[in-house]
Amino acid sequence: MIIEQLVRNSVAWLDSPAAHGVVVSTRARLARNISGFSFPPAAGEDDRKRLRQTLRSVFSDLKTVPDAVFVDLETIEAVDREVLKERRLISSELADRPEGSALVVAAEGRFAMMINEEDHLRLQSMVSGFHPEEVWQALDAVDTEIESRVEYAFSPELGYLTACPTNVGTGLRVSAMMHLPGLRLTEEVDSVVKGLNATGFEVRGLLGEGTAAYGNMFQVSNRASLGLSESDIVASLKRMVNDLTEHEMNARARLIEEDSLRLFDQVARSYAIVEHAGLLSSSEALDLLSALRLGREMGLVRGVSDSLINQVMLLTQPGHLQKDAGRSLESYERDQVRASSVRNRLRGMRLRPGVSGAGSDRL
Amino acid sequence: MIIEQLVRNSVAWLDSPAAHGVVVSTRARLARNISGFSFPPAAGEDDRKRLRQTLRSVFSDLKTVPDAVFVDLETIEAVDREVLKERRLISSELADRPEGSALVVAAEGRFAMMINEEDHLRLQSMVSGFHPEEVWQALDAVDTEIESRVEYAFSPELGYLTACPTNVGTGLRVSAMMHLPGLRLTEEVDSVVKGLNATGFEVRGLLGEGTAAYGNMFQVSNRASLGLSESDIVASLKRMVNDLTEHEMNARARLIEEDSLRLFDQVARSYAIVEHAGLLSSSEALDLLSALRLGREMGLVRGVSDSLINQVMLLTQPGHLQKDAGRSLESYERDQVRASSVRNRLRGMRLRPGVSGAGSDRL
Repeated sequence: MIIEQLVRNSVAWLDSPAAHGVVVSTRARLARNISGFSFPPAAGEDDRKRLRQTLRSVFSDLKTVPDAVFVDLETIEAVDREVLKERRLISSELADRPEGSALVVAAEGRFAMMINEEDHLRLQSMVSGFHPEEVWQALDAVDTEIESRVEYAFSPELGYLTACPTNVGTGLRVSAMMHLPGLRLTEEVDSVVKGLNATGFEVRGLLGEGTAAYGNMFQVSNRASLGLSESDIVASLKRMVNDLTEHEMNARARLIEEDSLRLFDQVARSYAIVEHAGLLSSSEALDLLSALRLGREMGLVRGVSDSLINQVMLLTQPGHLQKDAGRSLESYERDQVRASSVRNRLRGMRLRPGVSGAGSDRL
Repeated sequence: MIIEQLVRNSVAWLDSPAAHGVVVSTRARLARNISGFSFPPAAGEDDRKRLRQTLRSVFSDLKTVPDAVFVDLETIEAVDREVLKERRLISSELADRPEGSALVVAAEGRFAMMINEEDHLRLQSMVSGFHPEEVWQALDAVDTEIESRVEYAFSPELGYLTACPTNVGTGLRVSAMMHLPGLRLTEEVDSVVKGLNATGFEVRGLLGEGTAAYGNMFQVSNRASLGLSESDIVASLKRMVNDLTEHEMNARARLIEEDSLRLFDQVARSYAIVEHAGLLSSSEALDLLSALRLGREMGLVRGVSDSLINQVMLLTQPGHLQKDAGRSLESYERDQVRASSVRNRLRGMRLRPGVSGAGSDRL
């Protein structure tokens, strides 16, 4: 079944060897609406289904996404929607309101489109590492081809029209998923987030709007869409992400020079807990994996790769754990399975000698 | 030097083999004031010193405490006062206002008396385990002998007069230091504390009034002193402590039967952190040691004794760490020294097979 492949296969934007370092992945998304249909929040179920049917025929033979798969979301199980959400192929909103909605996915998840989310179309392109031009160009090609088949809601003054005014204009949002454990340890991350908010960027947690930055993962994106060209948006995000990456690397360098003990302590106790815990909550697991990912990048943890740690971050989310178990699991059971799963997947991991406090005791 | 012996020797009420299980130690204290002297909070420095001089001569030849040592608190170093406080021989208040104050100590710390704390005299008797009659009788004997030498402030209607009305009457407070990690894990401890407060008992943390219950250590004592005889006070504390001990043992039994995974998780991750941490705060160390003490009593941790764990709880307090290092240590340095010290002192500790999550993974 197509859905089984979708929820079981590896995640191109996360698992590839390029998904290491400070910027885990880059994503671009376009908000588009079709002329003559109500915006989804105002549309009845019949309207939503009629729109979905229209788009299904459009997507049956697009040249830019020849391998596109069309999934009516109410036809799949809740756990599969949860898995798609954890893979960032659909939003929480879509997972919670599947009736009349659809997901179109192609290129091993690098391209995805939600139908009848807040807008009729939410197209996204996502790759490992930091490649804002690439994701924008990939998206632009698909968008241009779709526009040759349907009439988008467009105003010559405002640009593309969207359900929420914040997206009017280009409808473009480019974001980077950044791993910032160094700035957390130097206690600079809160002021950095404040600074970003003040200068027109938005910072979200791992799973989008309103979620916490578990695992020190931050989604950073442009906020304004109106009055800027697509290339302005890409260029400003690029400058900001490069600055932020430099800040993070400086924080890591300072940690090693001035406070290596705190760094080693975090890495060693995270290692120890992973090795021994009987229960791990989702948020604790992400925080431990974040410390180990930092440790690996700084040469303190061996025998694992960033790609593997990224994968474990994903596979130990509640939806994935339950998909894997083949049944629904209570929170307590998930914590138990998660503790075993993290440990077993990271088997082979070890600390560089001297990183554990035990290695540096003066007897 | 006498003070060196006082702050270096083992602590009879804590280190003895009897200091295991739910009730770590029992303490009784009497508040007494001398007729014709202002209460200490109202007294000037000259008055305080005059009173101290009077008491010094009284204590030079008491038969009930023949080995009594008299220490003028302003003549010793701040770190030594800190150590005495951590050993529960003096209060925070006395440590902070040493001028004109004194500590009289005898019987390896089982008997102690503060001069010019809130009252002129605060006599205390402390032993390992739960022995409320014994501590009260020991104190009664000393008190009777002192009363044969000085005139206590006493009212035929009210009983012994004290600086704070809550102590008027017998001036007696009997308390038990209880280790309640089971009730913490079953999340019953807050309602238990509320219930105690509602029925005339007072619950304090490890280091007295206003301190938190770090390490799941709770000092439980009678609140009322007026209108009850000494034997009433002892009997009511005895009933309550026996009840509470049973509650704690029931909680532990339920943990093993119904939630052994959570118990094992706490013990195993505490073990792992102790083995690997580079930094340990005082409160975290107490919490880890509490889990290991519980683990030892339930047969999950081997190679250490309760007495050793009690000792480590004491020796890794800030004053003791600094006394041991022979110099003042910043908080960060203390956390480093504490991590090494806890690990080294517990060398030989090991988990029973199967307690670590790693031992129960189904591969």
